[in-house]
Amino acid sequence: MDAYTDSLERLIAALGKLPGIGRRSAERIAFYVLEADRAEADALAQAVHDVKTKVGHCSVCGALAEGDTCALCTSPRRDRSRLCVVEKPRDVIRIEATGGYNGLYHVLGGLLAPAEGAGPDGLDLAGLRRRLDEGEVQEVVLALSPTADGDGTGLCVAEHLQGTGVRVTRLARGLPTGASLDLANPGMLADALRDRQELGS
Amino acid sequence: MDAYTDSLERLIAALGKLPGIGRRSAERIAFYVLEADRAEADALAQAVHDVKTKVGHCSVCGALAEGDTCALCTSPRRDRSRLCVVEKPRDVIRIEATGGYNGLYHVLGGLLAPAEGAGPDGLDLAGLRRRLDEGEVQEVVLALSPTADGDGTGLCVAEHLQGTGVRVTRLARGLPTGASLDLANPGMLADALRDRQELGS
Repeated sequence: MDAYTDSLERLIAALGKLPGIGRRSAERIAFYVLEADRAEADALAQAVHDVKTKVGHCSVCGALAEGDTCALCTSPRRDRSRLCVVEKPRDVIRIEATGGYNGLYHVLGGLLAPAEGAGPDGLDLAGLRRRLDEGEVQEVVLALSPTADGDGTGLCVAEHLQGTGVRVTRLARGLPTGASLDLANPGMLADALRDRQELGS
Repeated sequence: MDAYTDSLERLIAALGKLPGIGRRSAERIAFYVLEADRAEADALAQAVHDVKTKVGHCSVCGALAEGDTCALCTSPRRDRSRLCVVEKPRDVIRIEATGGYNGLYHVLGGLLAPAEGAGPDGLDLAGLRRRLDEGEVQEVVLALSPTADGDGTGLCVAEHLQGTGVRVTRLARGLPTGASLDLANPGMLADALRDRQELGS
């Protein structure tokens, strides 16, 4: 369309590829950028560039890191006796957002998915084992998706850790907090019944 | 939050300033960028930069332009006998999107707003007059917001053009197409009654 300049059209196209941004939102954002402070637009462009060039993976736990090691692995405030095993770096952020965990993490880098031919070779089990061999870890918390692939991966990790003497736990199953019982499917209800909790006696 | 790296946190903050993007959307987009092709992310960063550095205003009509003159003013396919007067560059794009206008434009650069002390000095009336003096324009279409400020600005433009012999029209007032009559306010209904259209006899 002639009324847009090439640069504006390119920005709208680039924004429109982002998740949750349709053509109209992209136009609105493009105009916002056009009218924004130069410094604000520069900060956005620079941040996009930096994320692609500076963010990598922690050499210890596999979470996101700038530089060799992530801020969690180097923090003196974290409990080094607990290791939470997750599928991917983003899961670390989700669990940190709860504020309910103060240990360290280990990112597997995937899940076993026999149907898609994803076997244990794609998972960082060797790295996990090495960390346990250092002797500080007393509990491994499996925080994997409550799906067939997640449960299968959890069993595989647990088997892999047999003989280390480390306690292996997994996240509780039950009703999703805040949702109506009407929305619970039979599998959720069965888990919730099996793991029912004591309120008093 | 330790789980995010600095670059990621900066990108989320920069994205969160954009209109219609909350914290959660910003996080989702930041992760998308993190995992996207390098080329796609570069295109986004470059487009943001280009919009700020390359896009300016057409020296003839005031619409958005890269370089001295916009694509509309230089197009041989536009009807040079009509000039549509709008408040701001974005209005040009809105009117172009209708596909219902083939003339040229003139961007005033604002509206008269007596309550906020915005007088005619802020409007490019001199530029408009200069274009009419060239003699090609036969009709000026006022496409301003149907508000007190828009109507006042329209009257001011019309007065300014008295004696030029140019026909001055304004966009029709009436019921907004597609909306229910139940949503029409008394002002809309009064305009629609006054300007009622002949369907047959």
